[in-house]
Amino acid sequence: MTYPLPFALTPGEPAGIGPDLCLLLAREQQPAALVAVASQPLLQQRARELGLAIELISVTPDNLPITPAAAGSLYVWDTPLHAEVAAGQLNVQNGPYVLETLRRAGEGCRDGLFAGMITAPVHKGVINEAGIPFSGHTEFLAELTETPQVVMMLATRGLRVALVTTHLPLREVADAITAERLGRVARILHADLRDKFGIAHPRILVCGLNPHAGEGGHLGREEIEVIEPALEALRGEGLNLIGPLPADTLFTPKHLDHCDAVLAMYHDQGLPVLKYKGFGAAVNVTLGLPIIRTSVDHGTALDLAGTGRVDTGSLQVAIETALEMARSSQSA
Amino acid sequence: MTYPLPFALTPGEPAGIGPDLCLLLAREQQPAALVAVASQPLLQQRARELGLAIELISVTPDNLPITPAAAGSLYVWDTPLHAEVAAGQLNVQNGPYVLETLRRAGEGCRDGLFAGMITAPVHKGVINEAGIPFSGHTEFLAELTETPQVVMMLATRGLRVALVTTHLPLREVADAITAERLGRVARILHADLRDKFGIAHPRILVCGLNPHAGEGGHLGREEIEVIEPALEALRGEGLNLIGPLPADTLFTPKHLDHCDAVLAMYHDQGLPVLKYKGFGAAVNVTLGLPIIRTSVDHGTALDLAGTGRVDTGSLQVAIETALEMARSSQSA
Repeated sequence: MTYPLPFALTPGEPAGIGPDLCLLLAREQQPAALVAVASQPLLQQRARELGLAIELISVTPDNLPITPAAAGSLYVWDTPLHAEVAAGQLNVQNGPYVLETLRRAGEGCRDGLFAGMITAPVHKGVINEAGIPFSGHTEFLAELTETPQVVMMLATRGLRVALVTTHLPLREVADAITAERLGRVARILHADLRDKFGIAHPRILVCGLNPHAGEGGHLGREEIEVIEPALEALRGEGLNLIGPLPADTLFTPKHLDHCDAVLAMYHDQGLPVLKYKGFGAAVNVTLGLPIIRTSVDHGTALDLAGTGRVDTGSLQVAIETALEMARSSQSA
Repeated sequence: MTYPLPFALTPGEPAGIGPDLCLLLAREQQPAALVAVASQPLLQQRARELGLAIELISVTPDNLPITPAAAGSLYVWDTPLHAEVAAGQLNVQNGPYVLETLRRAGEGCRDGLFAGMITAPVHKGVINEAGIPFSGHTEFLAELTETPQVVMMLATRGLRVALVTTHLPLREVADAITAERLGRVARILHADLRDKFGIAHPRILVCGLNPHAGEGGHLGREEIEVIEPALEALRGEGLNLIGPLPADTLFTPKHLDHCDAVLAMYHDQGLPVLKYKGFGAAVNVTLGLPIIRTSVDHGTALDLAGTGRVDTGSLQVAIETALEMARSSQSA
């Protein structure tokens, strides 16, 4: 399989493990052309610290490659740092550098230079301390592409979990589950499973909000008053939605063997089981964007930067998933 | 290993799969004397329907056995039905029968006839329709033993999850997490892990309430205002509590390999991953009672009663767990 365009790979926070992960992966030939959008001197320095002999091949937007780099080499779109980097040491001066790598990758996807982007972790705190309002990759890319609603989905081999609400205090969750929000999220999930994952008729299992999905109203009435009518209306639009089902029995083979994704109502209802199952090999996918974006599901792990004691599993699955999405989008 | 007392086994709802499970298990010799507290004619009839040749050995409170029944036989403390039973067909007339089996088993544990009790599922609805207020095994046994606070814990091989709140609508959970309730639940969990599971110094991981355990107050303040101070006070009493930790990263080997139980704040935060991991082999343990009680984690499955297409895995683990608790209680 060849891809008509390369993929952007953003190592993210320069003091974290993102640069390490990109260099470790470059030891082997990757299945597509990956262009690290990062400081070339940073990557050189980190490779030395890790004792890795990786050849860095400088590329620019005018000469982007489409054939994969050979084992032991990595394409780099050099993006200048604002200050030197010591592994593990955050430096507010490099906040703007991180954003510039995301801007180059995101605009490159939007403008047809890249087939998609794969992101290693950033450190929100240090970017904010640099005086730049920033609440995460997802929001940054939504704004860059003028997308009003995105959906967070985590995936691992054999399971995909999307969320109706994400980073919301638990006491605000029940009121945030409205027919309108359920509709927006479910339509995006359905459309992206079809168009970006090539699933002609996606089958989606929907969790209830309450324990036992409300047990007929005895444990909460949101299923009866909000969720069931909303799902019924969405079925009328052609969505294949099963539920609302009790979350504690939904994640069993009887149900999971016959579905393409689970739609959970909130963060801690869906993600513990996903991360348990996908430990070290889970990927975060932003749905609803006009571009393809996948991400590792872990943080910057500052204490491990420069040590080599890091697991590339999540980044590998993030790359695999972006490639899968690019293939499905081409054929859609 | 021999036990000085037999264990009571309640098949529960007579039209459900409970009788089937007890008969299927009786094909093989069990590791302790198990006494089915049930109608003997019902068990005879169900055995015929399943094509099983199980010898039913009638026992009474005056001649309870302590040696395990041979393979192919089952001890029965005959408890009369109020009406005939057809597999799969609920009958309100037998509501009082179900309660009588639970009363005999529960009082037998309380009064030193049984070492513990293992319960197959009951059908709450049909008992209530019979005009008997009944909200579940747990509440029934709490009342029978005059226990003011019990704790629900689910367990499977390698993981135990206890809950601070159980069958509560999601919108009521945040307000139900008080220092007082956390204290009551954590103390019972600690004491029962020590006294009923033989763990000298139980190590308990505690989930936060909010996503990312509140992320330093950005995603909810209950961790800062309620949970952390409560845990600190409990540590002062000698409890080994780690947390509050984000629920989505807690269920990974790095954390689980070093703990004896997880304390989740609510039902759907802790149980999906437990039931995913323990599929078909999870057990429900009621902590805080003065007696040992374990239960299957599934329902009556009326449509499968009499078919033989049922999995005894959960009942087997329920029995194993009750025996483990009895051994630890003896040596405590």
